[in-house]
Amino acid sequence: MNKPSPTAPSSRTRIRRLPELANYERAALHEIIDQSYVCHIAFNDGESTHCMPTACWRQDDYLYIHGSNGGRLTKVLLAGTQVSIAITHVDGLVLARSAFSHTMNYRSAVIYGAFEAIEGNKDKLAAMDVFMDKIAAGRKHQARPGNDKELAATSVLRISLAEAATKISNTNPVDKEEDLNLPVWAGVLPMAVKHGEPIPADNGAIPIPDYVVRWAHA
Amino acid sequence: MNKPSPTAPSSRTRIRRLPELANYERAALHEIIDQSYVCHIAFNDGESTHCMPTACWRQDDYLYIHGSNGGRLTKVLLAGTQVSIAITHVDGLVLARSAFSHTMNYRSAVIYGAFEAIEGNKDKLAAMDVFMDKIAAGRKHQARPGNDKELAATSVLRISLAEAATKISNTNPVDKEEDLNLPVWAGVLPMAVKHGEPIPADNGAIPIPDYVVRWAHA
Repeated sequence: MNKPSPTAPSSRTRIRRLPELANYERAALHEIIDQSYVCHIAFNDGESTHCMPTACWRQDDYLYIHGSNGGRLTKVLLAGTQVSIAITHVDGLVLARSAFSHTMNYRSAVIYGAFEAIEGNKDKLAAMDVFMDKIAAGRKHQARPGNDKELAATSVLRISLAEAATKISNTNPVDKEEDLNLPVWAGVLPMAVKHGEPIPADNGAIPIPDYVVRWAHA
Repeated sequence: MNKPSPTAPSSRTRIRRLPELANYERAALHEIIDQSYVCHIAFNDGESTHCMPTACWRQDDYLYIHGSNGGRLTKVLLAGTQVSIAITHVDGLVLARSAFSHTMNYRSAVIYGAFEAIEGNKDKLAAMDVFMDKIAAGRKHQARPGNDKELAATSVLRISLAEAATKISNTNPVDKEEDLNLPVWAGVLPMAVKHGEPIPADNGAIPIPDYVVRWAHA
């Protein structure tokens, strides 16, 4: 691991702890974002440092978010504030033979930079369509699209993924030599986000779309 | 919702967007922390704002983390830096009849304050035992405990949950009156973290502990 990035990482994205887990590759970064519905955005508003969860999606090499024009997060981000964004998937608990060798399997991404606003209703709608495709592919042709009033009240923002790093741990337990023969079970307890059965809001009058039928099996 | 807190929230923990979702109650906050293996910590190191994931656990009204003494995060936190910590669970996608009425069901917590170090090997070990109980109840009696050298290299820190707020959304789709009769399926697509089958590192020579047997069914 610890491969150099196609675009050299900045000092902020150089992994300091466990650098052997660093992974600067685009594909891994994109997958971490695509598999998450939320990111955590750290910013300082001049008074305090904040950490806020918000929905996110990706197109090409940008992470997108949206928000009400009146929201504090939106206002601070539209001012060009530098941010740090983290997304983390926990894939398992790694149980070693000694307490201090326990660890987790995870995939995380950290992104640095500033957001820019998507301007114009056409580009805003196009960006929101990508979000809808992430939620349910094909639904953008069914749900009523945003109208001018809804679009005007909503900011769509994106941040470049140029300054980003991923850190991935996918390991079996690693114990010290002297602990290997202890009579203690060692192994991995895996976990993952799973989909449940869709819960319709109607009484079955509306045909169930394919993407809803597939949800619980995806 | 939007109940006042038993301890009045600070200006930083007053929920600005969708205040009707604010929930200042301790039980909800504790559950959000207890169900998560990681938190995201936002801090400013004097140069940049950062957002870092790290393992977390809870005892009483404190959130705990640990880290290598040499880590940047540990050093910054031991200096008493003010932080904001977020934990978020995504429980489902809420598909409304209009695009802009789509939302998510989630439970999130944001905590403000500064960490303090747990001093002394006895208290550090006791705190780490609570972490092990979260990972696997009973395992603290089986795995080799941390020795003096391991403990000396590790910082255990805690932050009070006094300045914290939760935000919980658990709703069916809410459409505007004029959209209710659109022929569009509406409902909730649930999701949750599920446990998979344990993966032993041994060849079955070690008896499988009860907490491992139970993992996939928890």
